[in-house]
Amino acid sequence: MTVVGVDLGGTNLRVAAVEGGAIVRRQRIVLGEARGVDAVVAAIAELVAEVAGDAAVVPVGVGVAAMLADRRGTVVNAPNLGWRDVAFGAALAARLGARHPLGVYNDVNAIAFGELGAGAGRGARDLLAVFVGTGIGAGVIASGALVEGASNCAGELGHVKVAAGGGAARCGCGADGCVEAYAGGAALQARIRRELAAGASPAVLALAGAVDAAHPGHVDALADDDPWARALWDECGAYLALAIGNALTILNSDRLVLGGGVLGRAPRLRARLVAGLPAVAPAAIMRPLTIVDAALGDDAGLIGAALLAGAGVSLI
Amino acid sequence: MTVVGVDLGGTNLRVAAVEGGAIVRRQRIVLGEARGVDAVVAAIAELVAEVAGDAAVVPVGVGVAAMLADRRGTVVNAPNLGWRDVAFGAALAARLGARHPLGVYNDVNAIAFGELGAGAGRGARDLLAVFVGTGIGAGVIASGALVEGASNCAGELGHVKVAAGGGAARCGCGADGCVEAYAGGAALQARIRRELAAGASPAVLALAGAVDAAHPGHVDALADDDPWARALWDECGAYLALAIGNALTILNSDRLVLGGGVLGRAPRLRARLVAGLPAVAPAAIMRPLTIVDAALGDDAGLIGAALLAGAGVSLI
Repeated sequence: MTVVGVDLGGTNLRVAAVEGGAIVRRQRIVLGEARGVDAVVAAIAELVAEVAGDAAVVPVGVGVAAMLADRRGTVVNAPNLGWRDVAFGAALAARLGARHPLGVYNDVNAIAFGELGAGAGRGARDLLAVFVGTGIGAGVIASGALVEGASNCAGELGHVKVAAGGGAARCGCGADGCVEAYAGGAALQARIRRELAAGASPAVLALAGAVDAAHPGHVDALADDDPWARALWDECGAYLALAIGNALTILNSDRLVLGGGVLGRAPRLRARLVAGLPAVAPAAIMRPLTIVDAALGDDAGLIGAALLAGAGVSLI
Repeated sequence: MTVVGVDLGGTNLRVAAVEGGAIVRRQRIVLGEARGVDAVVAAIAELVAEVAGDAAVVPVGVGVAAMLADRRGTVVNAPNLGWRDVAFGAALAARLGARHPLGVYNDVNAIAFGELGAGAGRGARDLLAVFVGTGIGAGVIASGALVEGASNCAGELGHVKVAAGGGAARCGCGADGCVEAYAGGAALQARIRRELAAGASPAVLALAGAVDAAHPGHVDALADDDPWARALWDECGAYLALAIGNALTILNSDRLVLGGGVLGRAPRLRARLVAGLPAVAPAAIMRPLTIVDAALGDDAGLIGAALLAGAGVSLI
């Protein structure tokens, strides 16, 4: 069976035909200024027609970088697209018509399902996928099924609270103490540059070349040697372990998939996260758990959205 | 359809025939000294035969107060029964035979499923049930299905970490900082008596009559007036809100069911827990959430185990 996956990010619109968990045809356009829902719906429909092939019914799954309100593709907020309260799913379903049963999914949920079906999660039954990039997101699979939650907001791991009280860091979401406010890439980079500008570590600054060029990779490179870098990574690794270990304690997953740009270029932060889990999650939770790196890269969302629609999950 | 539910606790063995979510016949014996697995299996088989009626196939679901190792009823540890590493499910399945397809479930999971099907969770799709009694346990339903986890240990909310570092309270499980070590009934009662013995609150002590008679209900009665009681309940309510709010942030439940002996006789602690949730869980998580009290009391586990077996969940 051919299924089409769509990855609707902030910069690119990517569409792929998926067969047996592998991409067989793909298209991609750069989203320009025309980011209104009508223009995006038209562009998706055009690319879907190009890749879909000639089967009588070709399901379409869309992974979108958005906060969703429901399982009908209603977008509460998609900052990268400038959308607020948009009935995207209904508009796209009307445009695609009966030949293309449609599902709209949170992008991280689609990525998690892609890793489950065709990547680092193959063979797992209960999976937690955590991506530490600019922000922190997660997708949850229980008994082989995606956990979408009542309003399609499950897996908001970035906004799990790891600190409280007056000293807790302010998150981009407006709340205090979210793990993303400590260990998300945007917060990390801002803190690194702020502390380097204040003279925290001449060694890391020398490696970065300039305050404004410093990023988590520079901290990671010296995290075993430089006292400031070591302390920062110890702190952030412990916060990540706390948030993830507590989630595992609720979920009892057999597979933890780790990914995202920050963890990808910060192996010493990843190591601290992993080393910190057993102090958070009980032995009975750690025992069945295998920890792996995400394997599908940018294709995970495309493949996962296609697999979800192909499995008939939350079709509109 | 008739299904049989079994509640295997530490003191009583209760068995009931369930039809349409309601108990139609029940039996109960007090477990005496004969708590070996063979004696318990024989007792269950006897009571099942008494209540099962005469249908050709009558599924049996057992909820057991135990840490399970798998979905085949292998018990890692059941402190109240004195069992360690016992193949209870296999022994009971062999005894019951083909007429009685068998499922063995964690007791709190069975209770959560009972509340979903016939109690305070009716109509919910994504449910978190939290019981604060001697310990703290939880059951999770996602998309209408029980989340058992890879080794049947999902919902270990009592061992979510809410504090770290040298000052974190030691839990009965051996770890530090578990929410159960702060807000579970056993830990609470020990702390209340210890602090009252040290002179913390003459008013609460007077209400209790004696240090050894003091319990969380006495603290609750004065939690709006007595400074020590108020501070203790503020602290414990915040810890419960942190653990539960973070779990909801992962799960995006539409129903939170609260129960257990401590919350039942401590309405002011329950109120602090509920009031603390919005500072922990994002608005998008709180919006679809309804908070209710458990409705089925001691029958929830019996009914839930029966409904799980009737739905064919993890039959051995």
